Amino acid sequence: MSEPVTLSVADDELALLTDLYQLTMIQAYWKEGMHQTPATFSLFFRELPPSRRFILACGQQHAAATLSQLHFNAVAIKKLASTGRFDDDFLDWLSNWRFSGDIWAVPEGTVLFPHQPLLEVDAPIAEAQLLESLIMNLVQLETVLASKAARIVWAAGDRPVVDFGMRRVHGIDAAVRGVRAYKTAGISGTSNVLGGLRHDLPLSGTMAHSYILAHDDEPSAFRAFARHYPDTTLLVDTYDTLQGVQHVIDVLRDMPSLTVSAVRLDSGDLSTLAKRARALLDDAGFQSIRIIASSGLDEHSIAELIAQDAPIDAFGVGTQMGVSADAPVIDLSYKLVEYAGTPRAKHSPSKTNLPTRKQIYRRRDTQGRYLGDIIARRDETGIEGEALLVPVVTGGVINTTAMADTQHASTRVADALPRFPASVTALADGESDYPVALSDALAHLSSTV
Amino acid sequence: MSEPVTLSVADDELALLTDLYQLTMIQAYWKEGMHQTPATFSLFFRELPPSRRFILACGQQHAAATLSQLHFNAVAIKKLASTGRFDDDFLDWLSNWRFSGDIWAVPEGTVLFPHQPLLEVDAPIAEAQLLESLIMNLVQLETVLASKAARIVWAAGDRPVVDFGMRRVHGIDAAVRGVRAYKTAGISGTSNVLGGLRHDLPLSGTMAHSYILAHDDEPSAFRAFARHYPDTTLLVDTYDTLQGVQHVIDVLRDMPSLTVSAVRLDSGDLSTLAKRARALLDDAGFQSIRIIASSGLDEHSIAELIAQDAPIDAFGVGTQMGVSADAPVIDLSYKLVEYAGTPRAKHSPSKTNLPTRKQIYRRRDTQGRYLGDIIARRDETGIEGEALLVPVVTGGVINTTAMADTQHASTRVADALPRFPASVTALADGESDYPVALSDALAHLSSTV
Repeated sequence: MSEPVTLSVADDELALLTDLYQLTMIQAYWKEGMHQTPATFSLFFRELPPSRRFILACGQQHAAATLSQLHFNAVAIKKLASTGRFDDDFLDWLSNWRFSGDIWAVPEGTVLFPHQPLLEVDAPIAEAQLLESLIMNLVQLETVLASKAARIVWAAGDRPVVDFGMRRVHGIDAAVRGVRAYKTAGISGTSNVLGGLRHDLPLSGTMAHSYILAHDDEPSAFRAFARHYPDTTLLVDTYDTLQGVQHVIDVLRDMPSLTVSAVRLDSGDLSTLAKRARALLDDAGFQSIRIIASSGLDEHSIAELIAQDAPIDAFGVGTQMGVSADAPVIDLSYKLVEYAGTPRAKHSPSKTNLPTRKQIYRRRDTQGRYLGDIIARRDETGIEGEALLVPVVTGGVINTTAMADTQHASTRVADALPRFPASVTALADGESDYPVALSDALAHLSSTV
Repeated sequence: MSEPVTLSVADDELALLTDLYQLTMIQAYWKEGMHQTPATFSLFFRELPPSRRFILACGQQHAAATLSQLHFNAVAIKKLASTGRFDDDFLDWLSNWRFSGDIWAVPEGTVLFPHQPLLEVDAPIAEAQLLESLIMNLVQLETVLASKAARIVWAAGDRPVVDFGMRRVHGIDAAVRGVRAYKTAGISGTSNVLGGLRHDLPLSGTMAHSYILAHDDEPSAFRAFARHYPDTTLLVDTYDTLQGVQHVIDVLRDMPSLTVSAVRLDSGDLSTLAKRARALLDDAGFQSIRIIASSGLDEHSIAELIAQDAPIDAFGVGTQMGVSADAPVIDLSYKLVEYAGTPRAKHSPSKTNLPTRKQIYRRRDTQGRYLGDIIARRDETGIEGEALLVPVVTGGVINTTAMADTQHASTRVADALPRFPASVTALADGESDYPVALSDALAHLSSTV
């Protein structure tokens, strides 16, 4: 086998995680003496996926911090040299390059709508271009996963949602950073050990069918597991769900010293099974045993279970959240909007963008409900509302006070979502009536560039 | 900001990339003295996504090699201790653990159908269980991406397909390992520098709209870029595609010393634009300039372009391949199929599996066309056909001769796909009529476990 078995990508390899054309364009700028010309790039999306009414912007501050540290080490330079596409003096320049620009970004976990920037980069064009591919990759992942998770958390209301999706997400980085996005969106726990430990989300775990199958019978498996873990969740559907619940009851009656905190239903008609399981447990005097449900859940099935009054106390969600199956992509664009002080825009059919440096203002009424947003030129003053874009990197240096941790971000998300009109948080396909307008000055500029 | 900015996951952190219940179950087995009991787990899928007629199994050999190296270092053990869920003596055992079992896997890039194992792990149950979550995560990613890419390559026929998707895939690991999957599936090149360099796939790059926008006008941008890169591809749709093509012609007529190898169309009606662009170029005497098309392409739009005789020489594919948007998940299962020498199976509704250790036999006719597969017990003899599962890890040691590199794998895929009936490689939704049967012995066992 000629390939390396290593799966890891070290932080100092990240500079090479880019599209080749970024490097060839930068070399061209450098040769043309254009590389230092000031430019602004804006990261935004033109359209929501049909199954989304908002996105939860996530990862943009974290990405900005990462990108401000980017550099090409000697190994990377040597690899680039080996492609035969780059001049030695350009590679010398590249090896000394550090990001010197500014990055404005909305806080982690900000609800956004089409054409609102997640972030804007003000930097010499070569530098801003150098960040493009990696910025998009990093922000795309967390925003896609957080946007899906926010809907699932919303559907579940006050019942906790736990992430069971590590095995389904697209690879290692998605598994680990996904937990960060989930936490921001309000997920209560995760089964993913490395992700949970790294991003400080409580670990949660039950048992697998294989554990039951490895024992002679279901009661033996339950007895053994409950003996080892006094605060345990037992999986009851390996053979027959209600018989499984009865086995839990039998085991607890036989051995009163054992305690079981919950049972997990993982197949079948979850609403009916939860009601029958609840009745069995209650009749046997085990009102304190909670019911956790999993098995292909998403926001729609959770909402339906709640509408059916299913007595489910917590939801375990895996696949659908792990890949955001109904909308695995948000079509982010990173576009040049200003060059050498002049606003720019692309005019390809259906690929237009708003020119110039921008700011988003979000207005509230006296009850704190969101009334609507204005997208304005960044240099405009006197526009009412909360300015969403804040400087997170200035002159290449991370502005640590502007960066919220995930705990803070998830609190902010939980506070913000109920302030939007119901048409924003509705789960059905469709569009919200939340007003997003351009300021007069931006509208004027946009029509004349 | 309280969280680390590092994005990297080191190889020796991978042991912690698991679901918590794996570790709690293993501790339970260890306490029960069951952890050394021999077991077999099988990795398979029960159903194809509606938009797939086969999967291209990818990553299973690479995953086996990775997993055979897994261990818990001192940092990992300390982190586990901090959760308060594990006994010190269990953690001692875990810190000394190395995988000692066997892994059988199909070669990278094997066409598979429901209920055929991608791999099987024969090991003490604690060890086999310890691999579950990471095996599924690793194999899922590469198999999902390779399965999509194989259809795209098939649709394109003899025209090369280049991966432009780095910015859309779900995170860093997916970006880098995705290139490995794409190469196996027959993708010809990638824009992704790190992915291409690591997995030895040719790098390919054109230019972005921002480069055009940063120049005073399109001809100036073309002139500058072609001067730097004699073998260049010019992006012609920033303002107006056919005007862009005319600008390429004008620039080349003005400066006969320049050469342009291709133009790239990235928006609009690609078939019509390609035909008009081809006519313009041919009429001007530039028959050698190739036409590359991109913009939301997938296997269906590529097939349509080819059916319309669009004179497109190569396809750049990004988003749809990067997340396998129509089937971002293949519902892999990793199930206990044998324990202490006894076949096991799970009986939950719609979650059944085939018991015991297995082998897949693929039969050919005298012309080399595939006739059908038999899934058999691994210990059966005398069954006709090529045995697909080969031992890649034996007694914890990687069998390097069984492992193909990606070059070899992609050659094998290109050879194998045309040998299947057209109903397997057809692009439309639907099922193939390729016969997959159980051997009599396996059918009998399956009905009696």
